[in-house]
Amino acid sequence: MRIALIGAGRIGKVHAQAIHSHPEVTLAAVADFDPSAAQALAKQYNSRAVEADDIFADDTIDAVLIASSTPTHADYLERAARSGKAILCEKPIALDLARTRDALQVLSEHPVTCALGFNRRHDPQFTALKEAITEGRIGALETLTIISRDPSPPPAEYVGASGGLFRDMMIHDLDMARWLLDEPIESIFAVGSCVIDPAIGEAGDVDTAMVTLTTASGKLCQISNSRRACYGYDQRIEAFGSDGMVQAQNESDTRLRFTGTSGQTEEKPKWFFLERYAQAYRLEIDDFVTAWKERRGPLAGAQDGLEALRLAEAAERSMREGRKILLDA
Amino acid sequence: MRIALIGAGRIGKVHAQAIHSHPEVTLAAVADFDPSAAQALAKQYNSRAVEADDIFADDTIDAVLIASSTPTHADYLERAARSGKAILCEKPIALDLARTRDALQVLSEHPVTCALGFNRRHDPQFTALKEAITEGRIGALETLTIISRDPSPPPAEYVGASGGLFRDMMIHDLDMARWLLDEPIESIFAVGSCVIDPAIGEAGDVDTAMVTLTTASGKLCQISNSRRACYGYDQRIEAFGSDGMVQAQNESDTRLRFTGTSGQTEEKPKWFFLERYAQAYRLEIDDFVTAWKERRGPLAGAQDGLEALRLAEAAERSMREGRKILLDA
Amino acid sequence: MRIALIGAGRIGKVHAQAIHSHPEVTLAAVADFDPSAAQALAKQYNSRAVEADDIFADDTIDAVLIASSTPTHADYLERAARSGKAILCEKPIALDLARTRDALQVLSEHPVTCALGFNRRHDPQFTALKEAITEGRIGALETLTIISRDPSPPPAEYVGASGGLFRDMMIHDLDMARWLLDEPIESIFAVGSCVIDPAIGEAGDVDTAMVTLTTASGKLCQISNSRRACYGYDQRIEAFGSDGMVQAQNESDTRLRFTGTSGQTEEKPKWFFLERYAQAYRLEIDDFVTAWKERRGPLAGAQDGLEALRLAEAAERSMREGRKILLDA
Amino acid sequence: MRIALIGAGRIGKVHAQAIHSHPEVTLAAVADFDPSAAQALAKQYNSRAVEADDIFADDTIDAVLIASSTPTHADYLERAARSGKAILCEKPIALDLARTRDALQVLSEHPVTCALGFNRRHDPQFTALKEAITEGRIGALETLTIISRDPSPPPAEYVGASGGLFRDMMIHDLDMARWLLDEPIESIFAVGSCVIDPAIGEAGDVDTAMVTLTTASGKLCQISNSRRACYGYDQRIEAFGSDGMVQAQNESDTRLRFTGTSGQTEEKPKWFFLERYAQAYRLEIDDFVTAWKERRGPLAGAQDGLEALRLAEAAERSMREGRKILLDA
Repeated sequence: MRIALIGAGRIGKVHAQAIHSHPEVTLAAVADFDPSAAQALAKQYNSRAVEADDIFADDTIDAVLIASSTPTHADYLERAARSGKAILCEKPIALDLARTRDALQVLSEHPVTCALGFNRRHDPQFTALKEAITEGRIGALETLTIISRDPSPPPAEYVGASGGLFRDMMIHDLDMARWLLDEPIESIFAVGSCVIDPAIGEAGDVDTAMVTLTTASGKLCQISNSRRACYGYDQRIEAFGSDGMVQAQNESDTRLRFTGTSGQTEEKPKWFFLERYAQAYRLEIDDFVTAWKERRGPLAGAQDGLEALRLAEAAERSMREGRKILLDA
Repeated sequence: MRIALIGAGRIGKVHAQAIHSHPEVTLAAVADFDPSAAQALAKQYNSRAVEADDIFADDTIDAVLIASSTPTHADYLERAARSGKAILCEKPIALDLARTRDALQVLSEHPVTCALGFNRRHDPQFTALKEAITEGRIGALETLTIISRDPSPPPAEYVGASGGLFRDMMIHDLDMARWLLDEPIESIFAVGSCVIDPAIGEAGDVDTAMVTLTTASGKLCQISNSRRACYGYDQRIEAFGSDGMVQAQNESDTRLRFTGTSGQTEEKPKWFFLERYAQAYRLEIDDFVTAWKERRGPLAGAQDGLEALRLAEAAERSMREGRKILLDA
Repeated sequence: MRIALIGAGRIGKVHAQAIHSHPEVTLAAVADFDPSAAQALAKQYNSRAVEADDIFADDTIDAVLIASSTPTHADYLERAARSGKAILCEKPIALDLARTRDALQVLSEHPVTCALGFNRRHDPQFTALKEAITEGRIGALETLTIISRDPSPPPAEYVGASGGLFRDMMIHDLDMARWLLDEPIESIFAVGSCVIDPAIGEAGDVDTAMVTLTTASGKLCQISNSRRACYGYDQRIEAFGSDGMVQAQNESDTRLRFTGTSGQTEEKPKWFFLERYAQAYRLEIDDFVTAWKERRGPLAGAQDGLEALRLAEAAERSMREGRKILLDA
Repeated sequence: MRIALIGAGRIGKVHAQAIHSHPEVTLAAVADFDPSAAQALAKQYNSRAVEADDIFADDTIDAVLIASSTPTHADYLERAARSGKAILCEKPIALDLARTRDALQVLSEHPVTCALGFNRRHDPQFTALKEAITEGRIGALETLTIISRDPSPPPAEYVGASGGLFRDMMIHDLDMARWLLDEPIESIFAVGSCVIDPAIGEAGDVDTAMVTLTTASGKLCQISNSRRACYGYDQRIEAFGSDGMVQAQNESDTRLRFTGTSGQTEEKPKWFFLERYAQAYRLEIDDFVTAWKERRGPLAGAQDGLEALRLAEAAERSMREGRKILLDA
């Protein structure tokens, strides 16, 4: 598969590396708003820098990986779909539901393989947790607890453009909840507060939040988010059921343990999402290629992006209005 | 201190054992609705069986430990207060707020040392967690996560008289939340479902529930309850703050670890609350005696019982009405 | 069972407490070289202080617990045996083999229940490890690794009278090895050094030592000892076999875990043997009473004391002579 | 750096992959006894297959990675040294000391960068353990405990050509001991037995062994080896010192934890050395390139291979003769 990459920033570099290391994929071209960034990345991987416009007209290109800034996602996605190219789009498709629905409409008219970058679904530990549930290891799933904390908060100026904590950060956890609960979510309730950085509050956002979800069959789920954990990237999930519990725990660089007068100490969790999910990004590319070759759906698709955004919007509304929100099936 | 014990059932026996092993306390008398139960327990500890009525008139008795059936608590508490005896009362004082408030009124007119049996406050691990917070080890407390699961559900017939999951089970977690958050709780939101035993649902109760609390300063708290965990008594608390996180983990009988073809396995958590909190019951007696001697308040008092019951009532109302409940300060 | 206690020092107090808390045992009398110590302890447990001589003539006394200073053990043991009393003797019976063999000769002529204070055999975790082996959970046992470190070294003046590291400290580990290997030990090899306190070396002893044992069937065992571990009392055993491995790990006061910028920290191991083996001392009394009632052998008897001492002597000889020592079956 | 690889077998493939992923290294050529194996591997990495003889004459080649069968190592090493190429040689240089010494003599006459494939020195966890010691985190190192078990024994026919457990398997642990103890080893004592596969015993080898090392300053070290651990590749090191203890623990694929009626279970250790040390092989290439560029010694060199082999020989002799062996400084 020959992939063109749009976006040579931080996340684009991660994808370029993952593409390079996959034996069946070639980095065919790199485009970026900043041509020098595209050139540097292209050079590193023996690829070529192009204008984004060139990509859609190039018949030798099978797929487009959209890793540009969020406001451009939906346009590029539609152009890629119309030109018949497979798509791996970083989340979100757009920050609002209407624009997202329009993009999905284009996709329905131009059906191509379209994967959405919910990287956590590809993480080996979360995959193993999902399998444990699916294989019935914990019996019937009854409750889900998701704790997700970033190492450090974004600059307050970022907050305004980000869509807020629920759309920008919790959307990953809402997607995990959807994936693991595996049935329609019936209601959502959210609370939030600003206890880390007052500037985030002044920008109209929260930095700490908790959400409760319920499903039709009575499964319950709690999500807890914080924009700052001094000890690193805190990413845990606990699935509890009639026959037991399975927990995804934090990962650290090594398993070294020191015992001294102050106790028994192991390393902090990995600090950054790029380290924690390095393997997930490689497996995401692999799932994308395989889905394209086998003409099956990817592990996370455009519809998943829409559904997670619906939940994020409802969560924000719940918090603003101080009430539980019922969701249509 | 000479203590008379009212109630020679399961929890009464635990208290009798704890009294016996305390060097400064004597089990002066035992009363029970069933005189033969009182006699058996009195004999075991070289005490004497009496009628409950005799206790309040006996000047040689310093304190009454009320471990009889819930509906009798408030009456015995009032009689003990009126006769000037120190009181250690099993929770709850009563299942409704009005009766509880009446009892507190009597206490205010007859001030005696009055401790309430929130045993978890005396658990060494939770005590150490509380200290870690108080000493500032995690900086400013921001979020609290409490997971509390019983090993097996009560018989459905018990459910009716129990006051329901929120008053009977979650009340312990609500008390822990109050104790650890250490500031007024502003709102409460609850969801619940019946996924373990339909008979519990038919009796009008839930067997699985989640609650969200907020405080005035923006602290957030989640509680998750289940009436059944196949692996034992699951009692965990996680306090997260600006400088770190402290977690109380489950305890098991030994630390033995087996490694074989199926993985690396340690023991299940302790199965029963009497095992898990054995030390807490002994320390509860010690706190009671010390509070009485030093004329200070006990670690948990009658007012804490009232406040936890208020939260339990509000949680149930929130679940029934599907909305967040605001609490008066 | 009515037990007389000889020795009201540190370890005597532990036994007095264990006797007091056992429902079937009475502390009938307490004797000590220092009468005031005997009186104080007797008073604490509603017993009476006596001369040691009085004990052997007293027909109301069923058993003698010998917790006096080591040089007196063998004499008291023989007198107790001759007067037909059951015996629980702190280890060692004597510091040399000849004296120990004499005592065993007296026991063979006056057969009474005679337990030896190898407290670790009664520890719940080591008991569970032994059961895991016996029940075949690890298949055929192949290797054993014992790590045993004291929190702090004894004063150098103690070292001279103690019999040295092998007789005083490693003897416990040699007994554990015998108990767990459960077949004759064929050879022993020891090395030792003095790296903690030069005064220990000047007193002719080592403070750090390692021993290797082999059995006739080819099982191998390593023991590692240190007189000082800054983090507490380090007591671990690993049994490895054809179907897996079972490990006894250190125990700590609580399971509290703190995560901060310096890592994920749990408590130090318990500091002192009295805390670590508190339950073992209670279970030791129970095994003694039960063995006496059921006329069966105790979990550890006088012969075990002799065998462990033989190994300790051989270990010391191996270290002094720099060679492997073969043991007679 | 342009590296030619000699040996396209299992370990050769690992190195080819590591070379490919290093940005500063090119796989210039591949040679193998079996030309088709060389061709297949060369093709996979866009390299070319050659005869081994061609390599030494090729001026465009900077370095030779020797991953051929053990009996060919010393010859290739000498030819590479004589042709002035840097060398990364899989261990051992040879199975006997005399041949090894000859090769070192050639190296001393033709000084080139020469690294030896003691892969464990490059493992991040062991590197961190070494750093903890060097930085004084445990104070003065006093004892070292190394446990090293293979998942499954080699075929008995392999055993004959392997040089035996001490030269083939324990040599890695002896190198780790040398590296971590960091001072001359004064004595060695070994025991061994055949308890896993009688065919190994018939081939004259053991499958289970324990070794004790002492150093001049009094440091003590124990090594325990088994050719089979049903639960995977067991690779642990514990360094104990005056200020604490640091332990390298086994690694597993994920940190997933399942809790059910049979206990709390985490994954088995990684099964195979290629998985466990995947990162070490990449870092080994990096250290080799850097040493070559900076004209410094590699982390493990030819002399380390000789010293470890000396210890392995002495260990085997100790076991055969049943006595402690003293080593010259």
